[in-house]
Amino acid sequence: MKKVMCIPNYSEGRDLDKIDKIVECFRGKEGVKLIDYQPDKDHNRTVVELIGEPEPIIKAVIESVKVAQEVIDMTKHEGGHPRMGAVDVIPFIPVKNVTTEDCVEYANEVGKAVGDLGIPVYLYEDAATTPDRKNLAKVRKGQYEGFFEKIKLPEWKPDYGPQEMNAKSGVTGVSARFHLVAFNVNLNTDKVEIADAIAKKVRHVGGGLRFVKAIGLPLEERGQVQVSMNLVNFEKTAVYQALEMIKSEAKRYGVSVYGTELIGLIPLQALIDSAQYYMQIENFEYDQVLETLLIEE
Amino acid sequence: MKKVMCIPNYSEGRDLDKIDKIVECFRGKEGVKLIDYQPDKDHNRTVVELIGEPEPIIKAVIESVKVAQEVIDMTKHEGGHPRMGAVDVIPFIPVKNVTTEDCVEYANEVGKAVGDLGIPVYLYEDAATTPDRKNLAKVRKGQYEGFFEKIKLPEWKPDYGPQEMNAKSGVTGVSARFHLVAFNVNLNTDKVEIADAIAKKVRHVGGGLRFVKAIGLPLEERGQVQVSMNLVNFEKTAVYQALEMIKSEAKRYGVSVYGTELIGLIPLQALIDSAQYYMQIENFEYDQVLETLLIEE
Repeated sequence: MKKVMCIPNYSEGRDLDKIDKIVECFRGKEGVKLIDYQPDKDHNRTVVELIGEPEPIIKAVIESVKVAQEVIDMTKHEGGHPRMGAVDVIPFIPVKNVTTEDCVEYANEVGKAVGDLGIPVYLYEDAATTPDRKNLAKVRKGQYEGFFEKIKLPEWKPDYGPQEMNAKSGVTGVSARFHLVAFNVNLNTDKVEIADAIAKKVRHVGGGLRFVKAIGLPLEERGQVQVSMNLVNFEKTAVYQALEMIKSEAKRYGVSVYGTELIGLIPLQALIDSAQYYMQIENFEYDQVLETLLIEE
Repeated sequence: MKKVMCIPNYSEGRDLDKIDKIVECFRGKEGVKLIDYQPDKDHNRTVVELIGEPEPIIKAVIESVKVAQEVIDMTKHEGGHPRMGAVDVIPFIPVKNVTTEDCVEYANEVGKAVGDLGIPVYLYEDAATTPDRKNLAKVRKGQYEGFFEKIKLPEWKPDYGPQEMNAKSGVTGVSARFHLVAFNVNLNTDKVEIADAIAKKVRHVGGGLRFVKAIGLPLEERGQVQVSMNLVNFEKTAVYQALEMIKSEAKRYGVSVYGTELIGLIPLQALIDSAQYYMQIENFEYDQVLETLLIEE
């Protein structure tokens, strides 16, 4: 059976009644599992995490866009997080028997439906139709307020929906991307310049690993520093590679790794790849993990 | 939802019609998943692997005992594997939301039902009622042929069923045990005495790790040797502990690890525990693995 994740972000994080109406679209639906949702008052934004079968997820997400279109008025929206619409972004992520290409299809299906509701849609990341639209920050630049003008530029013609701004609902970004692994390495030093220097060596832009984004951060209460990373393709750049490169760079400062953090969800294969490296396991298969037998076919 | 494994062994590995009648008990049953079954002609024995909910599994296993009782005649059984009955052994293994104590209950439920069918039953391993019955080899000693006399000894009075031998069906062992991890470490040497010496140091009986059984083996085609292990409680003696102890013992011979093998199914937690050690992960939780969201509740 095909399984996909979808993490729609709604520009409402304060009015629990409105949030409940949106989240209701994901409750009690065959093939849709609501993992979690976190309303954020400061950001005035709610992130919903869904997992399930592509078609029911797509259907429920479109339904939620209709609800958000009714209950959220972007002319009155204030909040700390960058946003461009009532349904700000809808990313699809492959989980099982689904490729990133499949997720690009789902993004187009949702994009078309949202466009048909009168909301301009931009496809981004792996669903982007031009290189300029790959990066969400670039797409969202100027935010809701800026889109009244931005949408008129020929290079920012929406991928779906009207070619003019929807004042009440703003615009929506829909994307497909690979599962991102958030991996932090805490170092036995309080010198943030060391974490910075290591982050620069290990990340792609600095000549490091292709699918690693990294920054250095102080961890003040711990008296330590952290190399905080996003691994954007764990199949090609494995978690252990990032860790081993950090250890190797840390050596020149006589600094060691105190501990690491895997934040949020991590795909089993990412864990297997690193266990296989460190334990030198020959020929280990995904379905040798007992729990994979408990997953619905 | 509770999930358990059960691996019944039947003393028929040649007559595919008979085997099919037995295996049919596990097909198309709600709550019962037939993982695999392997008829072995030389052993004249079929090992069936089941996973699912306790009650449906118990029901199906009892049904299969009735079928085996009809189709297998132990007075005519020959085969290379030690055996004491038509249904030789029925081990239960905890998988999810089930403890070994629960499995002892299931073993008793099945034991009683099998006894009521007129087949003497011995509980062994964690279900054993005396220390002498913990070890299957000890229980099965003398095999089918020997039980006509052995069953008369007061210390070998069956736990359930008649106090005399069932000539057609023999006797059946029912047990509860923890999931066993089969883990082999291949060494860069062809001297089997080194694998032997390391196995002796790492295993429980030799003063090594509490839940490790180990032997040294030659791997002739590879020109290497192997420390072949059963880790009988991976929660208490982790896979990485066994591996690190072998590396440390191998050093005295100047020998290194070429690779390792995890054989068959391994519980996710065993993999997590070792990944956590090698990657120094702080606070990693089982349900951070994405796939655990796909398991039925």
